[in-house]
Amino acid sequence: MEHRRGKLHPAVARTREAVRSTLSELPQGTTVLVACSGGTDSLALAAATAFEAPKLKLRSGAIIVDHGLQADSTQTAEIAAEQCRSLGLDPVQVRAVEVGNEGGPEGAARAARYDALRDAADEFGADVVLVAHTRDDQAETVLLGLARGSGARSLAGMAAVAGLLRRPFLELPRATTAAACVASGLRPWHDPHNDDPQFMRVRVRHEVLPVLEEALGPGVLEALARTAGLLRADADALDMLAADLAETAVRRADNEVHCDVATLAVEPDAVRTRVLRQAALEAGCRATDLTAGHIAAVDTLVTAWRGQRWIDLPQGVRAARRGGFIVLGPDVTG
Amino acid sequence: MEHRRGKLHPAVARTREAVRSTLSELPQGTTVLVACSGGTDSLALAAATAFEAPKLKLRSGAIIVDHGLQADSTQTAEIAAEQCRSLGLDPVQVRAVEVGNEGGPEGAARAARYDALRDAADEFGADVVLVAHTRDDQAETVLLGLARGSGARSLAGMAAVAGLLRRPFLELPRATTAAACVASGLRPWHDPHNDDPQFMRVRVRHEVLPVLEEALGPGVLEALARTAGLLRADADALDMLAADLAETAVRRADNEVHCDVATLAVEPDAVRTRVLRQAALEAGCRATDLTAGHIAAVDTLVTAWRGQRWIDLPQGVRAARRGGFIVLGPDVTG
Repeated sequence: MEHRRGKLHPAVARTREAVRSTLSELPQGTTVLVACSGGTDSLALAAATAFEAPKLKLRSGAIIVDHGLQADSTQTAEIAAEQCRSLGLDPVQVRAVEVGNEGGPEGAARAARYDALRDAADEFGADVVLVAHTRDDQAETVLLGLARGSGARSLAGMAAVAGLLRRPFLELPRATTAAACVASGLRPWHDPHNDDPQFMRVRVRHEVLPVLEEALGPGVLEALARTAGLLRADADALDMLAADLAETAVRRADNEVHCDVATLAVEPDAVRTRVLRQAALEAGCRATDLTAGHIAAVDTLVTAWRGQRWIDLPQGVRAARRGGFIVLGPDVTG
Repeated sequence: MEHRRGKLHPAVARTREAVRSTLSELPQGTTVLVACSGGTDSLALAAATAFEAPKLKLRSGAIIVDHGLQADSTQTAEIAAEQCRSLGLDPVQVRAVEVGNEGGPEGAARAARYDALRDAADEFGADVVLVAHTRDDQAETVLLGLARGSGARSLAGMAAVAGLLRRPFLELPRATTAAACVASGLRPWHDPHNDDPQFMRVRVRHEVLPVLEEALGPGVLEALARTAGLLRADADALDMLAADLAETAVRRADNEVHCDVATLAVEPDAVRTRVLRQAALEAGCRATDLTAGHIAAVDTLVTAWRGQRWIDLPQGVRAARRGGFIVLGPDVTG
């Protein structure tokens, strides 16, 4: 596409609009920080923020997290910081983190990164941290959630607003951030991890999504991202209803959690099973170990009661029916 | 795996258990019909039903729908009918249908098939029609739903119970029905349509699912099927809540549908948007034309009201805010 000299490239315009729409809700004088790796998406975000924030009388800086996972990570971080400074962002800071092992390599890096971003926001008095996830990232997240098979929440993807975090690019294709970088003469860093098929997300990006688009048509990324938004709203509503119901139907007693069968039995499956799941967590089950199959088994004590024995749950928790209650705890069968 | 002479093959046992579990809820003397194409899944279903139904004192027959889409379809149907008769099913009937064009080739064939099955149930006084969809079919249906991007309902897959229909194999892998046919010496018909990549479902089966399993691990089919069940329960609960809310918040007046803003505004997004969608359908929008984007636009009249003009919806329907109401109809802006 050709553009007249001086005319704003549409990709740059779209990144700026997305950032402006996110920032326009903030009061003047607010500090916003861009989480920037120096890669395509976050460099485009840094550039758009550096352009829009001053017009809205906001202070805008950037944080570059050095994960220390690659030999030249410190140099890469410094280059990104220099790019952010030359865009006019201030303060700009590199924060080195130590990545642990919990939750796999991607999960551990993510946890360390978000901790560092929260610490930086504290240090600089920032109310908002912008992260650069695109619609493509959202689609990948939905597909990764499919593999877990644990329902709406695992397919709900990333939220546009989550605590301090805002994701202005969540509805923009990655192609737009790439085009914005080219049009602005920015030189993004290409993370070799983005091509390493040991990461499940990389396999989804390079192997699954192209085949899915080929088979189902070019709209599938947009559809996946839209699905995520709708399922997030569904999960929020049902979690809220379950929390309301738990107020009346669930009580704690010593080491046990008691759920009133008569109250639960008349509720829709989707609400009742959420209450039971929450009760199991309160009784000591770990979320990562508690499956939909476990909850379905506990649910039979409500919906298909015929005197069956207890149900074994993770972390040694058991669920049993005792009179008009489902009782969950370490020793409910004694 | 080796089996002692005379010992029941585990795949045959699993198909029989699945059918028994479905049939055991039916009163003695009920007539059940198997929808049989002569293919692997439905032939295994016919065999399991022929074995289990008499033990439960049920009458079991089979219906073979001849779609007339292939040159030798009549012969194929007759061979399937003969196989069903030799399994001991009675009555066995071939029903020829005319497949129209509406809803694409797969949709039109499905509509014609289900009409024929309903007619057959009427004719033979059957309360139940068994169809042979497997867990693999369910996973494919979920992926096809992803491409639509219209939320929980489009990902909810097929129901185990839907009107007359029962799907006993919905949690069985296709590999089990195939193994059951081999073990029982049944000779299934291989539908050439199952390999024709002009069909989106075939592309999902042969191109998408293998890549998805490779990238995300071998549990992904089970996860997809489990997701479908959970999202079906979510969609049922939210539809019910929306229907309840509509009772108080929505009323019809002449050609218009009126939704009370104050009542809707305090509800969760997922419930409120479902009420608005239902109102748009009542006002004359066709479900297939009404997108999540349309409803999101109407929702801004509730949640982000700042005097904006009407929203154009399919079939010439418009939505506008008038006082404390969202009014939907053909001429709400006059």
